[in-house]
Amino acid sequence: MASWETYLNEHKSRYLDELIEFLRIPSISSQPEHENDVKRAAEWVSGRLQRAGIEAVQVLSTGGHPVVYGEWLHVDSKPTILIYGHFDTQPVDPIDLWSDPPFEPAVKENRVYARGAADDKGNMLIPILAVEALLNSQGKLPVNVKFFFEGQEEIGSPQLAEFIPSHRDLLSCDLILSADGGQWGEDQPALNLGLRGICALQLDVQAAKSDVHSGTYGGTFMNPIHALVQIIESMHSPDGKIMVAGFYEDVRSLSEAERSHIEAIPYSEDDYKKGLGVNELFGEPGYSTYERAWARPTLEVNGIWGGYQGQGNKTVIPSTAHAKISCRLVPDQDPDKIAQLLIAHIEKHAPKCVNVSASHIPGTAYPYLIPHDHPGNQAARAVHKELYGKEPYYARMGGSIPVCGILLRALGAYAVNFAFGLKDENVHAPNEFFRLSSFERGQKAYCMLLNRLGDWEP
Amino acid sequence: MASWETYLNEHKSRYLDELIEFLRIPSISSQPEHENDVKRAAEWVSGRLQRAGIEAVQVLSTGGHPVVYGEWLHVDSKPTILIYGHFDTQPVDPIDLWSDPPFEPAVKENRVYARGAADDKGNMLIPILAVEALLNSQGKLPVNVKFFFEGQEEIGSPQLAEFIPSHRDLLSCDLILSADGGQWGEDQPALNLGLRGICALQLDVQAAKSDVHSGTYGGTFMNPIHALVQIIESMHSPDGKIMVAGFYEDVRSLSEAERSHIEAIPYSEDDYKKGLGVNELFGEPGYSTYERAWARPTLEVNGIWGGYQGQGNKTVIPSTAHAKISCRLVPDQDPDKIAQLLIAHIEKHAPKCVNVSASHIPGTAYPYLIPHDHPGNQAARAVHKELYGKEPYYARMGGSIPVCGILLRALGAYAVNFAFGLKDENVHAPNEFFRLSSFERGQKAYCMLLNRLGDWEP
Repeated sequence: MASWETYLNEHKSRYLDELIEFLRIPSISSQPEHENDVKRAAEWVSGRLQRAGIEAVQVLSTGGHPVVYGEWLHVDSKPTILIYGHFDTQPVDPIDLWSDPPFEPAVKENRVYARGAADDKGNMLIPILAVEALLNSQGKLPVNVKFFFEGQEEIGSPQLAEFIPSHRDLLSCDLILSADGGQWGEDQPALNLGLRGICALQLDVQAAKSDVHSGTYGGTFMNPIHALVQIIESMHSPDGKIMVAGFYEDVRSLSEAERSHIEAIPYSEDDYKKGLGVNELFGEPGYSTYERAWARPTLEVNGIWGGYQGQGNKTVIPSTAHAKISCRLVPDQDPDKIAQLLIAHIEKHAPKCVNVSASHIPGTAYPYLIPHDHPGNQAARAVHKELYGKEPYYARMGGSIPVCGILLRALGAYAVNFAFGLKDENVHAPNEFFRLSSFERGQKAYCMLLNRLGDWEP
Repeated sequence: MASWETYLNEHKSRYLDELIEFLRIPSISSQPEHENDVKRAAEWVSGRLQRAGIEAVQVLSTGGHPVVYGEWLHVDSKPTILIYGHFDTQPVDPIDLWSDPPFEPAVKENRVYARGAADDKGNMLIPILAVEALLNSQGKLPVNVKFFFEGQEEIGSPQLAEFIPSHRDLLSCDLILSADGGQWGEDQPALNLGLRGICALQLDVQAAKSDVHSGTYGGTFMNPIHALVQIIESMHSPDGKIMVAGFYEDVRSLSEAERSHIEAIPYSEDDYKKGLGVNELFGEPGYSTYERAWARPTLEVNGIWGGYQGQGNKTVIPSTAHAKISCRLVPDQDPDKIAQLLIAHIEKHAPKCVNVSASHIPGTAYPYLIPHDHPGNQAARAVHKELYGKEPYYARMGGSIPVCGILLRALGAYAVNFAFGLKDENVHAPNEFFRLSSFERGQKAYCMLLNRLGDWEP
């Protein structure tokens, strides 16, 4: 048998073709018209796991989008590693900003462009290929492996909060590897210690029973856009603090060690601003940019709409106005409690002359934090040092991966984030791409990490 | 010679046939495919004026839709009255809500149903018929008459702001009668003393160069929706006053006489709320509902948008956020000055960490107010008292008709609103109609009014 390195090398072009095939499936989990495409993506993953030599592969229904499970459990004395990823994607709008159609993958300059390329199809395919290479080179795996891929990550994994605790035995493990995420830079690895949680609301304001003429009625009753704006504006202080009563109550303060881990990461304000394309940064006073992005909670309006949006003007006072609001949460905030505080705030600040309703948008997540010296992190750190020749940073992610909190709460196992996306890859935006160099490095890294974890005695 | 009453009576059925012929022309000014129909309507009006005995009739080009001019100027010592109306119509959508095709007039229950029936073809044909009746019954007119009909009222008369001042001599007059508008009720006349002006802006906020992930970046820079909301919220006080510096500076206070005129009009708050479908009214403190609707300026957001508007949520911080803002203006506010004050306010309140731009939306109008005891109103009041057996209300309109302000500024002549539409006639909506009783009453009213104005010495 050849080495896993040789195996990976020999199958490089087939693996790329397979990734492209996978990326052609428009598995947008938030849009009901793509429900069947999410299912097709699950079937594709199931087939691919079986071809890799994984056993007991099943597409399981959750009540929402399905999950895919598979296992290889033939080394009794070794730890059991659960590998996680997701095969659903974000929507594609604004579609006119894409250079190529989002579900017709384009390979250009050693990158593959498509919705889902980095988040998360490219990343989640990596461990499947690595396991195939190990099985075909070493004849067996160094650890017991379970795969658990979901199809609802981009809508906040609404069914997993029930599915995972009710499948505790199937999913039980010593450690989770999450193939959803990324590295610090092309030449710089990082261990991701934390994720923020999330909760979201839709805010709907209704005034008149239909749109009315702004000349005839303007000035006599409250425009629902004005009411909406008034409520939203009440949620922040001018310097960027969140003004919802009780919002910060359960926030765990950053320890000195945590602050110094974050401070050790090189940061250029100029580069950060350039990356965003803004002249100035802004946010909660008293915290550095990374602290604000990773370890402090937020309240952001993700969308707002009401009335006329076309050319010129239409002199209308609309009947309704709407906003989508989400909060990123940090330990030990509870998403349900925060949603309740928000609703109480909205009720308190809603003008009485309009009808205001606030409704949960499904998809909450608990914040997540793994100790920096967890054995899983120690193994990953060793792989990174070998592959990159560098110590990884101890960073966090500002985003939310609900499943990490759910898995920790249900299985008692921590998840090590082990994925290879990079920050400029337009995740959740037009022209998403994934570097083929990351795709290949990731495959090696997974082989090395699984081999190392074979030495771990949990 | 018979009296004008006899003449009108004898030609009643021909006049209805002519109205129906006029209504068959789909002269929708906002739709380029109907450009030629607007022209056909102008030709129809031109022909009808000539048959009525009007001289020097011309279809004049404006750079946009044409206008029609005609005159009868043979009573040297008498005042000159310019009669205004428009032969263009609103679009017809939603077409499926019409009981009969909008340009195939249907006469039912003493009403004629068609697009433009009340607004404004029925109303603008009235003075032509009245003048024909006077010429054929009295051999001459009691005053000098000029007709000035336009084909672009429904798109805000874009070319008239230039056309009217550059045709001052042609249009010069002592008084204007506007045949575009209506009465308070079937048994209740009103004199419309005022119109509000308008100016409008689009407000655009840009933060990051593209949409970004609210997890990755949330908390580090300013969300453009937050900046937009902050700017808009700064424009009103919580109790409904407009907080733009200088906004009220040129507002003419309501006199006691004006307030008592408005107070004399029956008003039911319950009916007003029921009409809108709201539980409570809201607006600038210290003013009644009609005062706020007619005689106080407003600042209303007609549309707002940014970020995600679909189902569920998309955890994005959008690159841009936008709003359409318009102000209704009252004497002596100047639309250009108010737009400048708004722009200055926006510049002052725009957070420095985002890019904000405010741009004019074309289509301003000056506010308009005619003294209630203007000789033209005194004559109209006398006609109303004779025809309805009632004193007219002294009301205003909250909407904007740009041409009244343009005519006043260019010709120094006030316009008396003298038209016979009623509020339930579905103007700008499906199943527009005009009462044949109003059509006939209007013809009498114009004969009576022109005869009365013959006694006026301006």
